[in-house]
Amino acid sequence: MNTHTSPRMSTQDIAHDLVALCKAGKFDEAGEKYWADDVLSVEPSADGMSRGKAAAHGKGEWWANAHIIHGFEVAGPYVNGDQFAVRFTIDQTIKETGQRMTLDEVGLYTLKDGKIAEERFFYLG
Amino acid sequence: MNTHTSPRMSTQDIAHDLVALCKAGKFDEAGEKYWADDVLSVEPSADGMSRGKAAAHGKGEWWANAHIIHGFEVAGPYVNGDQFAVRFTIDQTIKETGQRMTLDEVGLYTLKDGKIAEERFFYLG
Repeated sequence: MNTHTSPRMSTQDIAHDLVALCKAGKFDEAGEKYWADDVLSVEPSADGMSRGKAAAHGKGEWWANAHIIHGFEVAGPYVNGDQFAVRFTIDQTIKETGQRMTLDEVGLYTLKDGKIAEERFFYLG
Repeated sequence: MNTHTSPRMSTQDIAHDLVALCKAGKFDEAGEKYWADDVLSVEPSADGMSRGKAAAHGKGEWWANAHIIHGFEVAGPYVNGDQFAVRFTIDQTIKETGQRMTLDEVGLYTLKDGKIAEERFFYLG
């Protein structure tokens, strides 16, 4: 059975779809749709590296549960070859501390075979 | 002679200095100060890869000569490990065509031994 009859989506197609899902607030759905099973997810913190779809999903779930989201902006995508960048600006309150802050970050996505093989996040600072 | 007595600048130090130079319009000076001799510079176009400080400098010179710059914004840096991202928004007119347009891009810089080993540019689109 040939499962590869549909035309391969370009980096730009995937990037635009991911951005559209994020703009609709569907951050986790965007990941679920495009993460590779063994996606490498890299945050700036020392222990910020995780491997696999379940870990990436868990990170998103942790974030959604730990914060009140007041608003967000998603800008991009910015494309080069099999990579693209997206800028996220999120107005949020950390539930535990009550601190309201703006999360300003850039996500860099590297595709392989139409899936996100790596996502790497850069923080303003 | 020990030429390594001064404390090594962190990724964040270099990123902030580069952004400060760019905010002052000193794009080429920022490169000259931090490009490694064999810096790899990658634009999204098919022939957009160049190697070496002279090529990177030449690209900046070509850009400055080919455009009228009406204004620009530099946002960042966004840091992760030995890499950082910078967002550039440039209001410019292409001299040859008279077309005024906004260049919206993200530059991703990878440091090695305190110098830019690689710069990779992502375009909004």
